[in-house]
Amino acid sequence: MEYSIKHLFHINTSLSKVYEAISTIEGLSNWWTIQTKGNTALNETIQFDFGGTKGPTMKVIKLEPAKEIVWQCIASPHGWKDHIYTFSLDKNEGKTRVQFSHSGWKESNDFYAHCNFTWGRYLESLRQYCETGRGAASGSE
Amino acid sequence: MEYSIKHLFHINTSLSKVYEAISTIEGLSNWWTIQTKGNTALNETIQFDFGGTKGPTMKVIKLEPAKEIVWQCIASPHGWKDHIYTFSLDKNEGKTRVQFSHSGWKESNDFYAHCNFTWGRYLESLRQYCETGRGAASGSE
Repeated sequence: MEYSIKHLFHINTSLSKVYEAISTIEGLSNWWTIQTKGNTALNETIQFDFGGTKGPTMKVIKLEPAKEIVWQCIASPHGWKDHIYTFSLDKNEGKTRVQFSHSGWKESNDFYAHCNFTWGRYLESLRQYCETGRGAASGSE
Repeated sequence: MEYSIKHLFHINTSLSKVYEAISTIEGLSNWWTIQTKGNTALNETIQFDFGGTKGPTMKVIKLEPAKEIVWQCIASPHGWKDHIYTFSLDKNEGKTRVQFSHSGWKESNDFYAHCNFTWGRYLESLRQYCETGRGAASGSE
């Protein structure tokens, strides 16, 4: 049995703007963590850190402009190694629908529940950033 | 197979304050929906509505002061009937740890993912309400 974290929500802006926010260092720095570095091209890696805490290293394994971004975690101090992260975008009722999943969990445990809540906060930050230009990335306040 | 929505997070206030926010009409009105009515005592029911949309009717099936609140959905226009909602509280590193679960899902589908994101937003509203006195309940803006 494997568990996934899944979030579905809408952002009131264009597909290309949301895609850019998830597929560029500048975009990611504005809603997830200001300590984002690396290369967001296909097969390259992005490093996400949080204050004094080293975060995950993600390899970009799929990029379909204005449609889908998939990462595979290749290193993580917190047990995320080999987990898969998918952002799927489509148009729905004039807005951009985002379907996010973080899969590869062996257990639906406390850490899963903590990461689920935290993803919710950062995905809301993504929404705010895309709609208002101002997100709530880690380290931004 | 059954799926659960699970969120774990911390609120920087006392157990009793968080308990009150989840076990009184006034508390619930401040972080979930301003249209909360009914009776929050054991075996009684609470009705939650959202603007022009009728929401779930919850029966309070467990109440342990400063520790646990459990609801069972007894009527819902959105397929939540018979689902179980648990808020478990304990003290952790000087804060109140909240473990929330919404169980009874037959499928981890789009509606599950939508509800998961939405619970995340309202639980963050619960946190803000408990810490600052100001939540973001539906209908409050």
